[in-house]
Amino acid sequence: MSGTLPFLAACRREPTPHTPIWIMRQAGRYLEEYRAVREKVDFLTLTKTPELAAEVTLQPIRRFALDASILFSDIMTPVEGMGIELDFNPGPVITNPIRSQAQVDALRIPDPEENVPFVMETIRILRRELPAHVPLIGFGGAPFTLFCYAVEGKGSKTFSTAKSFLYGEPDASHALLGKLGDMVGAYLEAQAQAGAQALMVFDSWAGLLGPGDYRRFALPALERVMARIVPLGLPIIYFPNQGSTLLESVRTLPVDVVGIDWRLPLSEARRILGPEKAVQGNLDPAALFAPPSELLRLAGEVLDEAGPAPGHIFNLGHGIERTTDPDQVARLVDFVHEESARRKNR
Amino acid sequence: MSGTLPFLAACRREPTPHTPIWIMRQAGRYLEEYRAVREKVDFLTLTKTPELAAEVTLQPIRRFALDASILFSDIMTPVEGMGIELDFNPGPVITNPIRSQAQVDALRIPDPEENVPFVMETIRILRRELPAHVPLIGFGGAPFTLFCYAVEGKGSKTFSTAKSFLYGEPDASHALLGKLGDMVGAYLEAQAQAGAQALMVFDSWAGLLGPGDYRRFALPALERVMARIVPLGLPIIYFPNQGSTLLESVRTLPVDVVGIDWRLPLSEARRILGPEKAVQGNLDPAALFAPPSELLRLAGEVLDEAGPAPGHIFNLGHGIERTTDPDQVARLVDFVHEESARRKNR
Repeated sequence: MSGTLPFLAACRREPTPHTPIWIMRQAGRYLEEYRAVREKVDFLTLTKTPELAAEVTLQPIRRFALDASILFSDIMTPVEGMGIELDFNPGPVITNPIRSQAQVDALRIPDPEENVPFVMETIRILRRELPAHVPLIGFGGAPFTLFCYAVEGKGSKTFSTAKSFLYGEPDASHALLGKLGDMVGAYLEAQAQAGAQALMVFDSWAGLLGPGDYRRFALPALERVMARIVPLGLPIIYFPNQGSTLLESVRTLPVDVVGIDWRLPLSEARRILGPEKAVQGNLDPAALFAPPSELLRLAGEVLDEAGPAPGHIFNLGHGIERTTDPDQVARLVDFVHEESARRKNR
Repeated sequence: MSGTLPFLAACRREPTPHTPIWIMRQAGRYLEEYRAVREKVDFLTLTKTPELAAEVTLQPIRRFALDASILFSDIMTPVEGMGIELDFNPGPVITNPIRSQAQVDALRIPDPEENVPFVMETIRILRRELPAHVPLIGFGGAPFTLFCYAVEGKGSKTFSTAKSFLYGEPDASHALLGKLGDMVGAYLEAQAQAGAQALMVFDSWAGLLGPGDYRRFALPALERVMARIVPLGLPIIYFPNQGSTLLESVRTLPVDVVGIDWRLPLSEARRILGPEKAVQGNLDPAALFAPPSELLRLAGEVLDEAGPAPGHIFNLGHGIERTTDPDQVARLVDFVHEESARRKNR
């Protein structure tokens, strides 16, 4: 039954009547109904209160004809239970950044239902409240991206402290990456058991690594995540942000879908990844600020680049900007549905 | 005479006895002698005081056996004379960011000798004081990168305001890019006349654009810069930071050398750029935090990737981090000289 939904079918590279679309950060500040919730509670409270997290997850589904919903949470939410102390100010801040093997050794791999019961409860609420035709994506951070925050202690443009640790303490780095991989694997498995219908791994900082270091540090930990979640049988999406030069390695991962940022045309991504992977992306979020006719022209270029083969999920190439006009999102969603259906019927 | 210097010869893809090396941001906070100068003057004063700007340019040349020096300045320095009001706090801040065609129309193309006489004087001092075997690189920002700052008004991870302007006001954007290109062309020409022996164009934010938008917006303005400076006959280096997916377009530019960030192996860059371009780069700056043996192993990998063909200038893949140990820089410079000479004599 759910296999016939366009989003899930496209993940499996099966033909669909139209190209499915969802939007990274579709639950967010560009929606006034989201801002109304955030006026009452801070971000951390929102992620930890199942009724509210479910509510903001549902908001874009009510507004737009989206083909998938995605759990509202943060990639750093599950790391607290490992013994990494987290605050949001407004981005994630670690009060005890990891800088030694001893700190790595002290980290625990928590049971997700005990560590983040509110996430699992959010998923259960969503599976009751979402329309049957809108599947729910669960997600987690990739080990290397979580490593960047855990070591750096905060967001950064270059994550130079984290990268220095990687080069300066490769053994401790591998140990930390492995533990983060084990944590994320268990976390995603628990999300699947709670009802998530697809799983996405966000590697927001993959682009900090060249191909050699990606293979050396990021890939082995990712493979540990995959060993845990591939047997679940759900579609798996991996998004190596700014990872255009990493796709030869990404191709070797047992994922169904690879998210592509806007820097690489989808035709080129498909060429590198081969016919065994679906692709997701990759309209530049700034295109939503163009006049409507130009927005639709740019969206049409993404459909052109994706080509007629099955296995394309339309999305932005990065999270939606908070100053975006929601009417532009509505235009984009409707255009992708109509134009892709028109092309398929040609 | 100067044509026999390894740096200038490598720019022309001529054989050299060793691979030349210099370091992006080699004059900077990682040197205690630089910090001593900055304790006395702020950044803006430093860039506008020829004796001090020349002094900090010379500092790394005294310490390390570098093959080139680069003018100490900032890419935003010349935009003030256009009517864009600049402050540093600590990064560049524009008090009147450009958001309309009328503002673009009001911008002037200043005479560089009147606008930034201190830059030209710094170059003249450096040509007297630099050792004859160390050529001086002049530089400017690429039009698109200057556009990002001029519109956004400050540094940013995503430059979403600038990109929104690009998509929302393409005509005003092209006009602004063209004026910035004319300004930079005249500015670089004046640097050459003052004594710069090579010219480098920094496109720090090129990686914000996908290939289509790069060709549409960034490339035409860059071509205006090139039309002005190619006839001067000096080697031209272009650095499209995070521009791995743009190199097919970069190949069409009449530049001698393309700077490559650490995300793309140099062998791949050479394959895309073809035999008519030299390459510069691309050790990850974080490698300088590795233990010495690991640092030299990673530097050896860069030499491996560059291969035996002439036309490689060793550099980092991004500016040096301020917490770098200068002893590691000395090790790197000596290793690149010795190891590359050893390989050439094999």
